[in-house]
This record gives sequence, C-alpha cells and structure tokens, in this order.
Amino acid sequence: MSLDQVLAHIDQAISEMTSDLLPLLRQPSISADGTGIDDCAHLLAAIMRRDGIATEVVPTAGHPVVLGRAHARPGAPTLLVYGHYDVQPVEPAGAWTSPPFEPAIRDGRIYCRGSADNKGQLFAQLMAHRAWRAVAGSAPVNLTFLFDGEEESGSKHLPAFVRDHRDVLAADAVYLSDGPVDDSGRYRVALGVRGLLTLELAARGAARDYHSGHLGNLLPNPAWELVELLATMRGADGRVTIEGFYDDVDKPDEATARAVAALPVALSDFHARYGVDRLAPVPEPGFFERLMFHPTLNISGLHSGYVGVGSKTIIPATATARLDMRLVMSQDPDAVYQRVCEHVARHAPRVLVSRIGGSVPPSRTPVDAPVAGLVRQAVAKVTGAPPLVVPSTGGTLPDHVFTRILGLPLVKVPYANADEANHAPDENLSLGHFTTGIRIAAAVFGAMAQLPEKQVQQVRAE
Amino acid sequence: MSLDQVLAHIDQAISEMTSDLLPLLRQPSISADGTGIDDCAHLLAAIMRRDGIATEVVPTAGHPVVLGRAHARPGAPTLLVYGHYDVQPVEPAGAWTSPPFEPAIRDGRIYCRGSADNKGQLFAQLMAHRAWRAVAGSAPVNLTFLFDGEEESGSKHLPAFVRDHRDVLAADAVYLSDGPVDDSGRYRVALGVRGLLTLELAARGAARDYHSGHLGNLLPNPAWELVELLATMRGADGRVTIEGFYDDVDKPDEATARAVAALPVALSDFHARYGVDRLAPVPEPGFFERLMFHPTLNISGLHSGYVGVGSKTIIPATATARLDMRLVMSQDPDAVYQRVCEHVARHAPRVLVSRIGGSVPPSRTPVDAPVAGLVRQAVAKVTGAPPLVVPSTGGTLPDHVFTRILGLPLVKVPYANADEANHAPDENLSLGHFTTGIRIAAAVFGAMAQLPEKQVQQVRAE
Repeated sequence: MSLDQVLAHIDQAISEMTSDLLPLLRQPSISADGTGIDDCAHLLAAIMRRDGIATEVVPTAGHPVVLGRAHARPGAPTLLVYGHYDVQPVEPAGAWTSPPFEPAIRDGRIYCRGSADNKGQLFAQLMAHRAWRAVAGSAPVNLTFLFDGEEESGSKHLPAFVRDHRDVLAADAVYLSDGPVDDSGRYRVALGVRGLLTLELAARGAARDYHSGHLGNLLPNPAWELVELLATMRGADGRVTIEGFYDDVDKPDEATARAVAALPVALSDFHARYGVDRLAPVPEPGFFERLMFHPTLNISGLHSGYVGVGSKTIIPATATARLDMRLVMSQDPDAVYQRVCEHVARHAPRVLVSRIGGSVPPSRTPVDAPVAGLVRQAVAKVTGAPPLVVPSTGGTLPDHVFTRILGLPLVKVPYANADEANHAPDENLSLGHFTTGIRIAAAVFGAMAQLPEKQVQQVRAE
Repeated sequence: MSLDQVLAHIDQAISEMTSDLLPLLRQPSISADGTGIDDCAHLLAAIMRRDGIATEVVPTAGHPVVLGRAHARPGAPTLLVYGHYDVQPVEPAGAWTSPPFEPAIRDGRIYCRGSADNKGQLFAQLMAHRAWRAVAGSAPVNLTFLFDGEEESGSKHLPAFVRDHRDVLAADAVYLSDGPVDDSGRYRVALGVRGLLTLELAARGAARDYHSGHLGNLLPNPAWELVELLATMRGADGRVTIEGFYDDVDKPDEATARAVAALPVALSDFHARYGVDRLAPVPEPGFFERLMFHPTLNISGLHSGYVGVGSKTIIPATATARLDMRLVMSQDPDAVYQRVCEHVARHAPRVLVSRIGGSVPPSRTPVDAPVAGLVRQAVAKVTGAPPLVVPSTGGTLPDHVFTRILGLPLVKVPYANADEANHAPDENLSLGHFTTGIRIAAAVFGAMAQLPEKQVQQVRAE
C-alpha cells in the first residue's frame, strides 16, 4: 500500500473523479449575495459523506462551514485541510464563452465559475482521500476538512468559528491549495502572507470650500496639512519615518533568506508587464525581500477639492487620504495603528485617523518547519522537480486564523494553472493541473505520516 | 454749475432714473450661453445715445463691447469708465422670490439678475453723466464708456479689444464700480487685484491601478511622488520654497502700508464666519497684508486612487494636483510658471506640469496716485466719511488690461449694498446705494477736472 499504488489508482480513476466534480461546479455558491450557498454546502457534505468522511454543515453568523472528519488512524498525525466552496460573482456574465455555472470541457480544461477557485482545488484534496481509501482503506493520517463559505467575502466569520471549534479542529498542521502555480509552470510551496491595516486620514479646514482669491493666505488649507503630514511619514529613500514602524519587523533567518535568494527574478519582464521603468523607492534592494520581509505604507487614495474639467479656484474644506499597510512578521496591526496615531498627534494633531474595515495580522510558517520540508519533498516526488519555496506572498489572507488562533504551521500548494482566470470570465482549471493536484495531495497525505509527534507551536496571539 | 447743483438734480430726478434702469434689467444678457446678449448691447447703446453719448456696439471674437464717447471738453482730462452689461446665469431659478428677469421693487431694493452686478452700477455712471449734462450741458471731463459683454465669462476678448482700440480708448485714468461696499457699510476705494496662475501637476506610475499586496514595495506609487513633490514647495511656516518664487514680490511703500494698517480687522468675526480657529500658516502676520502683498500657493484639488465607500487596496496609476497661485506686484505669471517648472524638474522630473486656463498678471495703482486722492475726496464729500482705501483685493480681475496694456491708473468704488447677493438668487440693489452710487459718480467726474495734465504712467508690460 505504497504511495505509488495510490498514484496509479488516481490515474486510473481520473475520468470518474473529473465527472464527480461537475455537479459541485454546476451548483452556484456566490457568497457576495448568498446565491446557492446553502444548497452547495449540503451538496458538498453529501459528496464527502459518500467518501466516508463524517461531515456536518455548521451554521455561523454568516454562511455555513462544511466540516468533515476522516480520522481512521488513532495516534497518527492530523492534518487540517482548508478550502472554500463559495465563488466570486460571474459579472460580466455576457463575457463568458459558455454559461458560468454550466461546466464545459474544452481543450483539456474545465470552464466554470469555481472550477479553479476553489472547488476544483478542494475537490482534489477530497479525491486524494478517496484514492487512499480505495487502496489502503483510509488515508495514512487523520484528515479534518474545513471548507469556508465566505472566503470571497473576506472570511468574516472564520476567526470566531475557529475559536469556537478549537477542540474539533485540533491538528498538527494546516494544508491548503488556492491560486495558481508560478508563471514559469513550477509548483510553489507558500508559507506566509503579509498582514493588512487600512486607515483614513481626514483633514478639515473651513466650513465649506471658499474662494482662493478672496481668502487665499487667510483660511487654512487642509490639502496642505494632509500633504505635509504624509511627507513626515516617509523619507526620500522610501523608508517609513513613523516612529517605531519597523520595531517588530523580523530579519529573515538564514534558511528563509536562502529560499528567497533561489527565487527567479526577471526584472525586465516585470517592467514591461506593469509599464514601469523602475521599482518603488524602498530601502531594500531584493525583489522578493521587498514583498516578504518589508512592510508597506501605501497611499491608496487621495481626495481634496476639484480636479475635474476646467478649474475651480477654491480652498478645499476637506482633504482625505487612504493608507494601507502590508505588515510583516512580527508586526501587530493594533500596535502599528497606535504608532500611526501617535505620529499624527505629534505632527498634525487636527487630522483624524480612523480604521477602515478590519485588520489582519501577518502569518509565516518557518521554511525549516518539518511540515514544510515534507510537503516540498512530496511535491518534488510527484512533479519531478523541486518546487519554489515562497516564505511569504505579498498579499493578505486569513492564515493567521490557523497559525495564531490554533498555533499551527500552515503550508499552501496552489494547484491551478497560471491562466486560471480566477475572479474573471472563463475561469478554468486544466485537467492536467487537476490531476497533478490530486497526486500532490495524495503524496502530501502520505508524507504527513512522517510528521514528528508534535510540531513546534507557532506564535500564539491568543 | 457746481457739483452741489448736480447732486440736487440727482435727488430730484432719482425716480425717473430708477424707472429708466428697469428696461435694461428686464433684458436678459447671460454671457455663459449668450442669452439676450446682442439685444442687451443694442438696448444699452440706445439708452446711451438718448443721453447724448456717441455709442457703438463693437463686435469682438466673443460678445460685443458697447463703446460710448461723451467728449465735450477739448483739453480737459479724459476718464475711461468700465462696466459690464452681461450677467450670471439664474440657476437655481426656482430659488428666486420673483422671476429673475422681472425687476421687482420690494422694501427699498430692486430685485433682478444684474441689478447690482453690474447693470445697476454701470447705469449709475450713466446717470451721473445725464445729471451733469442736464445741469451744465456736459460733464466737466471727457468720458469714454467701455461696457464689456463677457466679464462673467472671464473677459476673454477684452485684452485684444483694448489692444486694437488704444487710440479711441486714450484717457488719463480708468474708473469703475463693481462689487459691494464694506461689510461695515463704509465705502471702499480699491486700487489693485492679485494675479492668477493655475497649474496641474500629474504623476504617473504603472499602466493601471494594481493590487497593493501583490505589488506593494515593487510598483512606484505616484501619490507618494506627488505628495513628496508638493512637500518640497512649502515650508512648515507656510513660506513657499520654490526657488525664486518671491523674487518679484514688491514691498509696499509707506503710503500703502499706512492705508492697510488703517483697515479694520475683526479676527473673531472672521473665525466664526468661516468656521476656523486659526489663520493659514503664512510668514506674514498682518491680516490684509496677507491678501494684498503676499502671493499664495494654493492646492485647489488632489486626486489619486479611491477614497469612496469601503476600501480599495490599490497602488494608484496616477495622482493629480491642481495648484492656483494668486500673484502680487511685480510677479509675472510666465516667470512664476517657469520657476515652478524648474523646481519640478529638480525634485520630481517625471511629474508633468501644465497650465490650466489663462493666467492674469496682478495690477495695482499707487495709493498716492493723484487720481486715487481725488476719488477719495469725492467719496468723502458725498458720503460724509472717508472711504476705506484698499490697495489691493485678494481676488483676480482683468485690471491689468488697463493698467498694463494702456498704462493707466485704475480706481474702483463699489456701489452695491453688502448683501447684494450677486451670482445668487434674489440678487438686489438697494435704492439708497443706487442713489449714492450716482452721486459718487457725479462727484468723481467733477473731481477728475482737477487731474494733473498727464498721470504718471503705470508699468507697461507691452
């Protein structure tokens, strides 16, 4: 009952596995407006139960979680597998080649909303379990499946769900698959994400806009106040000058630095792709280091007065800036927010600071965590090439729910083809990538049996 | 044939003069869309001809100028009287108590679009001429009347008209009435205006907005570039740090400084009126000095990215600022524009600078110019109180057309009541202010006979 037998079984059962995915794809599950969500949760649960997974549809304050357990190996490690069954809206619906919820197989790809993001990928995990079960009676480790119904809407109720189900979610590691392989076609093992803090700065002058001639040099101009405040926040070299901003920024350890140095950079491709001739001024020369180990202070919006057709010679009444900060280990959004407030109080005490939306802490699983090594080997075995190891991606996902609330290491292996068109018309999953995904999942489940008794616990924020 | 006789005649003829104004008010003349403009020009010319003024309606590339000459005194000084017969649009039309082009007399005021701005005031000048003619056969000086049809639309064709008609406009001084008396009720003798230069700064980053996580610290952010550029343009004390910006700013002479020091300042009223608790940071403590002798660098608009409902975590593709500068003597808009371009080239060479709309040079007639003294005395005689002498107002008007192109001194005495509601619904002119306006004009025409043979020529820019 070796992995090779499981892989052979997958190759032989792949047609049936592909056919079994189609009903799940056909069922709409748009979290933004709730379309089909409950039906999809129950359909998914039924599919899982048929494969011997004890599954419940668990209500939350939002859309339900589908929670399944296949714990046949007392004493063996437990892997918590995360995925999401909700999908993005289909707009613009007219831009699809075939109807968005009618799975169509063309040229070796399944076209359907959710085919890649994320139903096809979570289904690959389930099919790996089915294959192990067919060959060996059960997977070699205990598997807990947590399928979110709100990922495309920000996973608002996931933290509370995880906090409320600590016991049932007890595991040794978290594994998930979302997003595409590298543009080069190589598989990636991704271990972290940056956090996020979003703020608004609001400056206020006179009661309304006034004539810039009659009152120019008399009325204070909030646009100047805002510009001058922002200018105190960043130096000419791009270094953020908010006192304490970098206090909790960790230097990457040697293994991590080595992994990042091995990632391929094609700067001229980057320039051409984004239409720029330079990188942002940041006091960090490394391309990926900027994304992984360096926080951002980004101006995402500025507004004051009038910049439309013609001109309005006014002193604006208000000026607003939106800032977002991508945070890296071990920055804490609340602490950074506090530092920004202190900075504003020192430099422009009349300017109001407010938080926009929720914040998310960063998350990172060490490159040399045993689970990361085992997953790397599993991917290499299936694909015949060592995967790219990505210590962190630049964006923000709720990984912290697992790494901080549950204190577990978390590893991601994206299965989709690079041109999956997720969130867009003609979303698709190539059959080759679907098959390889199932094979990788089977290998990962196999490798997890070698996981040491208890993983080193990650930072526990709670 | 003394002024007293003329004033007595005005008091006796005021009912008829008021009645004669009404047809002119009834005739729409909206320069923004041209409504009634030609009819109004011809109606005004007919009124002037009935009063013995040789009048022509002179076409321009825009709306016509009404040009009248009453030159009965060979060898006497000539006064060029400016006014405008065009009016603002009436919107919101529903907010008027009586229809905007049906003059209605209520509570001692004439309500009508144009009653105060500017038909009622230019008519006061014409009635003063009528009174002098009735009493003495003609005014004691030669009068040239230039009535603009485009003032409310920026007097775009006035400079060309004046250049093309230098000979027929030859005069010793320019006199006009526009705007209201001081809030305190005191009359003002105003001698200058600030100039105007309006610019756009445009910074550009990547080809479109991109995800602030996936690309944050990689793509340059044009909002930061713009903010940092703007911050180099002004110090914390509000001093403009564009090299050479203040080079041509004149220090006021002693007579001017004395006149300004005499103007009443009520800072707490100012704060309450505009809803502020402070003045703008400007390295000039004097309230009126800030408006008259100090240029502005105003941000009238800022735009980048998104500041609407919710949040968009993007690196904006573009960032735009609008600047307007109110210029003081002897600043030249072209020279200041050049200085700004040089500054931007030094600090942010990728940012594009462009001019928005036309620019206007500042204008100022010296406080101690003989014509200013004569007008002051005339106003004091009629009103029984010395007028406020205002060396410059903060806004911008095309005074330079007369002071620079023709090289003439220019004096303004606003006749309207402080609550004239110009540019707004229920625009009105109080009958008392209309009468006093005619009396002041009569006294000014009388005083002009004492004008020295040739005025000191002002700065001639051309």
